[in-house]
Amino acid sequence: MSSPPNDPAGPIADSEHNVPRLPTGIPGVDALAFGGLPKGRATLICGTSASGKTVFSVQFLACGIAEHKEPGVFVAFEETPQDIRENMAGFDWPIPEWEEQGVWRFVDAGLRPDEEEHLVAGDFNLEGLRTRIKHAVESTGAKRVALDSLAAIFTRFPDAGVVRRELARMTAGLKELGVTAVLTTELLNSEEDTTRFEVEEYVADAVVMLRNHPSVARRRRTLEVLKLRGGRHKTGEHAFSITGEGIHAIPVGSLALTQPSTDRR
Amino acid sequence: MSSPPNDPAGPIADSEHNVPRLPTGIPGVDALAFGGLPKGRATLICGTSASGKTVFSVQFLACGIAEHKEPGVFVAFEETPQDIRENMAGFDWPIPEWEEQGVWRFVDAGLRPDEEEHLVAGDFNLEGLRTRIKHAVESTGAKRVALDSLAAIFTRFPDAGVVRRELARMTAGLKELGVTAVLTTELLNSEEDTTRFEVEEYVADAVVMLRNHPSVARRRRTLEVLKLRGGRHKTGEHAFSITGEGIHAIPVGSLALTQPSTDRR
Amino acid sequence: MSSPPNDPAGPIADSEHNVPRLPTGIPGVDALAFGGLPKGRATLICGTSASGKTVFSVQFLACGIAEHKEPGVFVAFEETPQDIRENMAGFDWPIPEWEEQGVWRFVDAGLRPDEEEHLVAGDFNLEGLRTRIKHAVESTGAKRVALDSLAAIFTRFPDAGVVRRELARMTAGLKELGVTAVLTTELLNSEEDTTRFEVEEYVADAVVMLRNHPSVARRRRTLEVLKLRGGRHKTGEHAFSITGEGIHAIPVGSLALTQPSTDRR
Amino acid sequence: MSSPPNDPAGPIADSEHNVPRLPTGIPGVDALAFGGLPKGRATLICGTSASGKTVFSVQFLACGIAEHKEPGVFVAFEETPQDIRENMAGFDWPIPEWEEQGVWRFVDAGLRPDEEEHLVAGDFNLEGLRTRIKHAVESTGAKRVALDSLAAIFTRFPDAGVVRRELARMTAGLKELGVTAVLTTELLNSEEDTTRFEVEEYVADAVVMLRNHPSVARRRRTLEVLKLRGGRHKTGEHAFSITGEGIHAIPVGSLALTQPSTDRR
Amino acid sequence: MSSPPNDPAGPIADSEHNVPRLPTGIPGVDALAFGGLPKGRATLICGTSASGKTVFSVQFLACGIAEHKEPGVFVAFEETPQDIRENMAGFDWPIPEWEEQGVWRFVDAGLRPDEEEHLVAGDFNLEGLRTRIKHAVESTGAKRVALDSLAAIFTRFPDAGVVRRELARMTAGLKELGVTAVLTTELLNSEEDTTRFEVEEYVADAVVMLRNHPSVARRRRTLEVLKLRGGRHKTGEHAFSITGEGIHAIPVGSLALTQPSTDRR
Amino acid sequence: MSSPPNDPAGPIADSEHNVPRLPTGIPGVDALAFGGLPKGRATLICGTSASGKTVFSVQFLACGIAEHKEPGVFVAFEETPQDIRENMAGFDWPIPEWEEQGVWRFVDAGLRPDEEEHLVAGDFNLEGLRTRIKHAVESTGAKRVALDSLAAIFTRFPDAGVVRRELARMTAGLKELGVTAVLTTELLNSEEDTTRFEVEEYVADAVVMLRNHPSVARRRRTLEVLKLRGGRHKTGEHAFSITGEGIHAIPVGSLALTQPSTDRR
Ligand SMILES: Nc1ncnc2c1ncn2[C@@H]1O[C@H](COP(=O)(O)OP(=O)(O)OP(=O)(O)O)[C@@H](O)[C@H]1O
Ligand SMILES: Nc1ncnc2c1ncn2[C@@H]1O[C@H](COP(=O)(O)OP(=O)(O)OP(=O)(O)O)[C@@H](O)[C@H]1O
Ligand SMILES: Nc1ncnc2c1ncn2[C@@H]1O[C@H](COP(=O)(O)OP(=O)(O)OP(=O)(O)O)[C@@H](O)[C@H]1O
Ligand SMILES: Nc1ncnc2c1ncn2[C@@H]1O[C@H](COP(=O)(O)OP(=O)(O)OP(=O)(O)O)[C@@H](O)[C@H]1O
Ligand SMILES: Nc1ncnc2c1ncn2[C@@H]1O[C@H](COP(=O)(O)OP(=O)(O)OP(=O)(O)O)[C@@H](O)[C@H]1O
Ligand SMILES: Nc1ncnc2c1ncn2[C@@H]1O[C@H](COP(=O)(O)OP(=O)(O)OP(=O)(O)O)[C@@H](O)[C@H]1O
Ligand SMILES: [Mg+2]
Ligand SMILES: [Mg+2]
Ligand SMILES: [Mg+2]
Ligand SMILES: [Mg+2]
Ligand SMILES: [Mg+2]
Ligand SMILES: [Mg+2]
Repeated sequence: MSSPPNDPAGPIADSEHNVPRLPTGIPGVDALAFGGLPKGRATLICGTSASGKTVFSVQFLACGIAEHKEPGVFVAFEETPQDIRENMAGFDWPIPEWEEQGVWRFVDAGLRPDEEEHLVAGDFNLEGLRTRIKHAVESTGAKRVALDSLAAIFTRFPDAGVVRRELARMTAGLKELGVTAVLTTELLNSEEDTTRFEVEEYVADAVVMLRNHPSVARRRRTLEVLKLRGGRHKTGEHAFSITGEGIHAIPVGSLALTQPSTDRR
Repeated sequence: MSSPPNDPAGPIADSEHNVPRLPTGIPGVDALAFGGLPKGRATLICGTSASGKTVFSVQFLACGIAEHKEPGVFVAFEETPQDIRENMAGFDWPIPEWEEQGVWRFVDAGLRPDEEEHLVAGDFNLEGLRTRIKHAVESTGAKRVALDSLAAIFTRFPDAGVVRRELARMTAGLKELGVTAVLTTELLNSEEDTTRFEVEEYVADAVVMLRNHPSVARRRRTLEVLKLRGGRHKTGEHAFSITGEGIHAIPVGSLALTQPSTDRR
Repeated sequence: MSSPPNDPAGPIADSEHNVPRLPTGIPGVDALAFGGLPKGRATLICGTSASGKTVFSVQFLACGIAEHKEPGVFVAFEETPQDIRENMAGFDWPIPEWEEQGVWRFVDAGLRPDEEEHLVAGDFNLEGLRTRIKHAVESTGAKRVALDSLAAIFTRFPDAGVVRRELARMTAGLKELGVTAVLTTELLNSEEDTTRFEVEEYVADAVVMLRNHPSVARRRRTLEVLKLRGGRHKTGEHAFSITGEGIHAIPVGSLALTQPSTDRR
Repeated sequence: MSSPPNDPAGPIADSEHNVPRLPTGIPGVDALAFGGLPKGRATLICGTSASGKTVFSVQFLACGIAEHKEPGVFVAFEETPQDIRENMAGFDWPIPEWEEQGVWRFVDAGLRPDEEEHLVAGDFNLEGLRTRIKHAVESTGAKRVALDSLAAIFTRFPDAGVVRRELARMTAGLKELGVTAVLTTELLNSEEDTTRFEVEEYVADAVVMLRNHPSVARRRRTLEVLKLRGGRHKTGEHAFSITGEGIHAIPVGSLALTQPSTDRR
Repeated sequence: MSSPPNDPAGPIADSEHNVPRLPTGIPGVDALAFGGLPKGRATLICGTSASGKTVFSVQFLACGIAEHKEPGVFVAFEETPQDIRENMAGFDWPIPEWEEQGVWRFVDAGLRPDEEEHLVAGDFNLEGLRTRIKHAVESTGAKRVALDSLAAIFTRFPDAGVVRRELARMTAGLKELGVTAVLTTELLNSEEDTTRFEVEEYVADAVVMLRNHPSVARRRRTLEVLKLRGGRHKTGEHAFSITGEGIHAIPVGSLALTQPSTDRR
Repeated sequence: MSSPPNDPAGPIADSEHNVPRLPTGIPGVDALAFGGLPKGRATLICGTSASGKTVFSVQFLACGIAEHKEPGVFVAFEETPQDIRENMAGFDWPIPEWEEQGVWRFVDAGLRPDEEEHLVAGDFNLEGLRTRIKHAVESTGAKRVALDSLAAIFTRFPDAGVVRRELARMTAGLKELGVTAVLTTELLNSEEDTTRFEVEEYVADAVVMLRNHPSVARRRRTLEVLKLRGGRHKTGEHAFSITGEGIHAIPVGSLALTQPSTDRR
């Protein structure tokens, strides 16, 4: 791979000193993250509405199943599992089939009435949800987990302090399970770095930003690895598109063909 | 249709993998949405004041009746049914006639005194309204429903968390009814993507933005399909006008004449 | 009238399908509104401080009396009736004379002590005021009503939800009386479309914006018909001036002489 | 006086139809206000810190005494009477002498402990102060009153609604006394029209803005008559300076020498 | 001194009519303030973090002792007296020595536990502190007092109204003591005129702004006399630097050598 | 070293009058700070997410151990000690080894359940934490302490006043221990100087800003010494990079080779 002359990170090398990576299989993303998302950790996927957060989450699991035989768990908040199945029918990922094979499991995290009460009473936390995720992971042997989108519950919390605590607890809980996870959350304005509660990006170990910039005649999609604790990654915004095959990012300064793990198109 | 060379979505194709569409019949809109709005779902129509939200909603039902023999239900919030009848008299849609024929039904969703009390007490939800809509849909066999404008009630809610929950419930309820729906809501500033409560666009399955830009000598109207979960659509803002025949959008990069479903003028 | 080539509204035509208009008689305004303000409805006049809201309101009634023999009712909030009489003495409108003839009636809507109490207790509404307006309208046979300025009371309300409800009730009440009304309210910043409570412009059937732009050597006044439900109107900001004869707007692309209803200077 | 060709107000004429004016005697200001401030009314003087509000207020009274033999009352809020005496010693206005002659009277409106308590309890109003001003006016036969600066008390009020009410009451009370008054209040940002509470400029009958713009090497002072209900005035910002003789404004498009009332330097 | 041609204040003259000045001895500052800070009054020193507020405060006292044999009192809030001693060791001011000679006295104004309680209970005021300052001034015969920084306590107050009252009381109390004082407070943004609570600059008799502008390769420090009630001063921002000799301002349009009181470098 | 011609600080000199410095050993930083961070004090490291705050903190301790045989204590808030160990494995700092040798000690400052309760009850303070830090410092003989990141707890505090107090107490407590400390905290927007609570930078004795500017093709990292009470430092933003050897800053106007303490690469 040709790296820009003044790139402090130098050429890609699967350094033993870097935090271990899990190749996502999403075209272009592993090159941007120098090998993949941090293995055994949770990565935050921040994006404005329609920026591709859900497609990213699903594709993350789909690649795990299709390319690495790694079962996955999808935790659905506002969109129900059935919504996800329908919305993803336009891509080449046979989710219902995978569900039958036991390699894809949905956890329906829509609020139940008793949870609603706890929220109103102010003593709500995500403990119950963590238990259900644990169970789903253990019963499927899942290696990958996607949560889409925690923001649906965060909006109900009283302040950013509670969001910060619950997000930290959730990512810690996922780490204990040993899975590699993506969590989606919301970015209010694609022209600024600000997440909805202005704390999410500080808590997470790794952060990917999806943006959908207004532009003269059409929107322009970009993907950026903003943070990756413990490892190298490319910086800055890189164009991507969503087609019938899912997300495809084109890292600037990379030759896609030279990157085996992302070369599946 | 000629598509821009770097359009990731490629040429229009009524792909079996795409979320099914309902051709709205609104000139230009179906081309932008690659066939129509998502069938059996709710699309959010966001716009500033006077941007054409109500005209869009009415025309959506009118096209259903006139072109597809699909009865419709119009749920009126701040404007009463009588207001709508009068304001739409300037267009070629014989609403009162259709009401008599039983293919157009109004649901008057202005707040009743007891609802007002619940709002003040803080335990208000839109359950009662959902029941009334269900009844209207079932008794008319409606295929299309328009709600204009939920924002009137949302303004009375204590916070964005409640708006998010109630909007999610409403769209889920409409989906259960099997109808294709449009819900209008408000966009505070035409120069930004921000909806009134900054959550609406995240909840909905599909989002259309109507803008009324200040411009040197006159306003400039644009329509944008911001989101369409589970399917392709054109991106970016496209000019439209409101004439005596209603809304007419001119998709950039399209030749109107080649798009049968929108070629009714 | 010469209309700009790409004007979607086309040439003026007193279409039977348009919402009926009441020619205001204010020079230039009827041309902008394609015939006048919506008859039997309430139009919101939004403007910054000193933008001419009160002059517009008074002139609206004055033209009714002088040109159409339509009696009028002026509901005065912060400025007392006596203030209005004095401030309008510089124009050619013999208000005190008209009062004697019974064709002009003031309703003094300054808060009374008991109303003040209700406001503090939080159970205030504008019911009492509506009754007094009704009485004034019926006893004079008024066809036109002006309320200047509701914002004085709105500022005392606890939140935008209450403003929205009370404004909707007030405009509905006026419609029931069968009068054509103008209601003034406040626009915080002349460079943005934002009204004081960010809900007013959504509630009203028609909205006129008065602006007083800072400019190099002097202020520059503009008038814009932002919204007119159910009918055509010119869009964009048009210059106007206030002289000893009141407001005079100069619609761009119009030849004043060809517009009979506005050709009284 | 030469007036700009497209000035809608035309040449100065002491029109009988205009609201009566009181020539202030402040150089340049009467030309901007076409004869002076509205007689028998309260004019709001809005300005940022150090913009000259206090100098304007004092000069307004001083000119009344020196040129028109009109006694004046100065109501001092944050600055004490003694502060005013000292700070104005640099100008040619013998305040202590005038006090002895009984043509200048101070009202010390600094909060007394019991008023402080009422403020905390929330039932504070400016009734007591109005009584003291009335007494001072009657015992001196004052024709001019200055209040500098009401903002000191407004800052203690719970919300803009209370500010609006109390400001309206105060200006109404002054009008009843038959005096011509100036009230100073605060403008947070010299680059915008926004007053501290965003309601002051709507309540007052006349508004003068004093600005102290940051500029390359030094500040640039401007004075603008923003509003003058019931009469003509020049619009836009006009330069002024503060020298040992007080405020001196230079109206653009005016020849100072041709304006007798302002030609005293 | 050469003054710019269109400077309304004209050449410096120790006018008897101007508010009396105390030459600070800080190089350049007395020229900007036309002789010094107002004698017997409190001047507010507003600045962003690291703008030089503390250096200014200390230098103000140091010049008094070294050049005018005027003892000084330094009231330390967040930084303790020991912090000040250490941080100022890099300058040529022998503070500990002066303390021994009884010409420099520290008042440690860090909050004591019982004050903390009053703050929480909401009935806190600065009365106790005023008493301690009075005692320190009387026992040293101090002519100069510095308070650095009141903002530390202001941040704990519930609202801007309380800040305004307490700041007014503090400056009044200092005036009664007959000392010349500087009070530092905080300016949130160096690109705007806005102080932390947006009231401080209105209350004070004199205001000096210290700014630390971000600039291409380095910060750029400027000093501006924003306000000086009762007297002349130069306006606009003037460059200054902090070196081992303290603050040194370079007034534009001045020849430093011709200003004896500032010519000590 | 060559210093820019108009640098007020002049050439570097290890002046006896300057606040004593502790050479950090972080390449480039000591040159920017004219010798190192203030010895025996706490320096605030402010940065946006992913700006390098944690790398800076760890490197600060690592350099102490490796180059100066100074043991260090790392207080971990949101990231656990184990997280830090893993994330720093990519650098040449054998933390686990150092832990065994007793020269590196972690304090796990994640909130314990009882602390959580105190936070909710509102009587939380950092007393307990200070005791634990004290113990760790005394048992290791640590000379350097890093706290990363206090912001995690600050977000839970009710207002900026409490943040200010607790930050002041913490830095005072560290000073008493005689250690040199770095405390990280958050900078919401890399384009402005504003810290999360807008008080942090005022409280600290020294402030370093880390920024991660969005730029055309990639992020651009800069480091700035914003404040250093009691001493000289270079001003303005200086580029830096993070490589496998940690942070490396390149002071503008410096020749790295001439600065012994920073010349270790
Ligand atoms: N089959 C498809 N072919 C092409 N583009 C598609 C397809 N399906 C979805 N898209 C595009 O992806 C967008 C939605 O992506 P996605 O649902 O992942 O966004 P999101 O960030 O999760 O949004 P939200 O915040 O609303 O949940 C659609 O608006 C559409 O532009
Ligand atoms: N018969 C007509 N001919 C041409 N234009 C019309 C006609 N009727 C309405 N319009 C235009 O449509 C605008 C109103 O559209 P519509 O009522 O749909 O807006 P909206 O977004 O619903 O506004 P609101 O938020 O105020 O309800 C009018 O202001 C006018 O410009
Ligand atoms: N006789 C007149 N001749 C010319 N201009 C006048 C005359 N009377 C008023 N004006 C202009 O009209 C302005 C006031 O207009 P008006 O009172 O209608 O404003 P408004 O929008 O109601 O303001 P507010 O919000 O303060 O009530 C004055 O400031 C002045 O510039
Ligand atoms: N004798 C004088 N000669 C020249 N300029 C003076 C003189 N006295 C005051 N000034 C100028 O006037 C300014 C103060 O004006 P003034 O006190 O009227 O302002 P203000 O708007 O009342 O401010 P604040 O809001 O702080 O009360 C001073 O800052 C100074 O620039
Ligand atoms: N001996 C010195 N030589 C040169 N510059 C110094 C010296 N001491 C301090 N400085 C400069 O002065 C700055 C601090 O000034 P000072 O403490 O007065 O600021 P401040 O406005 O009081 O800040 P804060 O709000 O943080 O209290 C330092 O950041 C440094 O740039
Ligand atoms: N081994 C490495 N090689 C190169 N760069 C690295 C390495 N480890 C980390 N980085 C870079 O450092 C960044 C993280 O730095 P660090 O964790 O210090 O940031 P931070 O300011 O503490 O962020 P947060 O607020 O999220 O805690 C990563 O996003 C990555 O860009
Ligand atoms: Mg999604
Ligand atoms: Mg509508
Ligand atoms: Mg008015
Ligand atoms: Mg003043
Ligand atoms: Mg300081
Ligand atoms: Mg960190």
